[in-house]
Amino acid sequence: MVKVVLLGSGNVASHLSQALLNLKEVSFVQWYSRSEPGKTLLGSIPHTTDLKKLKMADVYILAVSDTAIEELSAKLPFKNRLVLHTSGSVAMKSMDDKNRRGVLYPAQTFTKGAEINFKNVPLCIEAEEEEDFYLLKGLAQKLSDKIYYINSEQRQYLHMAAVFANNFTNHLYHIAHEICKENMVSFDILHPLIVETAKKITTLSPKEAQTGPARRNDKKILKKHTDMLKNRSQRELYELFSKLITDTYGRKKL
Amino acid sequence: MVKVVLLGSGNVASHLSQALLNLKEVSFVQWYSRSEPGKTLLGSIPHTTDLKKLKMADVYILAVSDTAIEELSAKLPFKNRLVLHTSGSVAMKSMDDKNRRGVLYPAQTFTKGAEINFKNVPLCIEAEEEEDFYLLKGLAQKLSDKIYYINSEQRQYLHMAAVFANNFTNHLYHIAHEICKENMVSFDILHPLIVETAKKITTLSPKEAQTGPARRNDKKILKKHTDMLKNRSQRELYELFSKLITDTYGRKKL
Repeated sequence: MVKVVLLGSGNVASHLSQALLNLKEVSFVQWYSRSEPGKTLLGSIPHTTDLKKLKMADVYILAVSDTAIEELSAKLPFKNRLVLHTSGSVAMKSMDDKNRRGVLYPAQTFTKGAEINFKNVPLCIEAEEEEDFYLLKGLAQKLSDKIYYINSEQRQYLHMAAVFANNFTNHLYHIAHEICKENMVSFDILHPLIVETAKKITTLSPKEAQTGPARRNDKKILKKHTDMLKNRSQRELYELFSKLITDTYGRKKL
Repeated sequence: MVKVVLLGSGNVASHLSQALLNLKEVSFVQWYSRSEPGKTLLGSIPHTTDLKKLKMADVYILAVSDTAIEELSAKLPFKNRLVLHTSGSVAMKSMDDKNRRGVLYPAQTFTKGAEINFKNVPLCIEAEEEEDFYLLKGLAQKLSDKIYYINSEQRQYLHMAAVFANNFTNHLYHIAHEICKENMVSFDILHPLIVETAKKITTLSPKEAQTGPARRNDKKILKKHTDMLKNRSQRELYELFSKLITDTYGRKKL
């Protein structure tokens, strides 16, 4: 039975805690955070707000913000135990080397209150020591069906790719929402299109899936749209994307 | 029983033909296209490649490319019948006024071979004459559960919003795919994140759903990512999005 202590109180910690609680083969021995999580989340898990009272465990998971990882790893009042962080952008070795180190990065977006089936969350794992790697792999396989071995450098790039595919994409949704609102058109009309666009690239490569005026190099529409956009930054973005897309596919008309 | 003639051979025409075929209350009397569609698509529908042989019908649907609509509407060898186009960006009145005019715009992305449940496709409708509007509304309601009344000007903006939410989003997926490939990381890792990001905005507004380093105004990560991006256009895009996001939420650190 693997004994786990979880540290942190954000969205990753909350979702991870629920996933850990559901595992019969894992003993979730303690939850640490600076303030106590709500009763509903906590259930029967022993909680502490005092690092000095951390219990003995096989794995300590630091599910805290990127900027807090290094400091928290240094404050841990023990050494030579396995400590993981859950960040996409922080190198494994930025944690204090008094403990054995590893990473368990869930490549998913978590929202408070929104249920996620953890079995479908891709988990990217990395460990310094071979033995720890097998322990980590065993734990990850209990949590999810999708395990990937990713080193710290690859993980940085994966995280940046996720910024494009998730954060920037969401901002495009925001712009679409604004354009609809200004013209008294319901943004709901675009929901099925948005979901279908996302699903499409699970069977086609994004390069094959590309459609639209820039893909066709339809200069008339491109000109019309940039004329319609009164917001300068939105126009700049429209022009940059159109250039990037026409550069990707060549400037020949379809 | 509404009699329909469909004109065109692209993805919209193919998907629309299958949806029309499934309707008991609609008589799909003829399909016109310059070359004959495959037998599997055509089934038992009478086909012609000759505009002069178009049969009598209540509605003629021009599911052709934007640039072909005006010309085809002028070539129709009859007048005073109801003619619809299916484009997001072409004004209803750009069709020849010898016929009565309307629009049936499906706000969805169609891919050859990918099945779409037409009942979930938002249909944006518009008609010049009140009587035609009711005929069109009746037809649209048979095809889909999601009907929206959108005039030509609104439809132009909706189409532009769709370019942001679909075409540009897909190009972001492409960039994420490239970054993964260059670093020997499987793009599959990002599939669940991409689908979840899209689903999220059906329950939260995109503004509420925003996460990531630019949202948090995490200057350290923003600097790191722009240093990591060797491709100039990708770096430019990263910087523009980061600026747009920090401008939207203010520059205060979360």
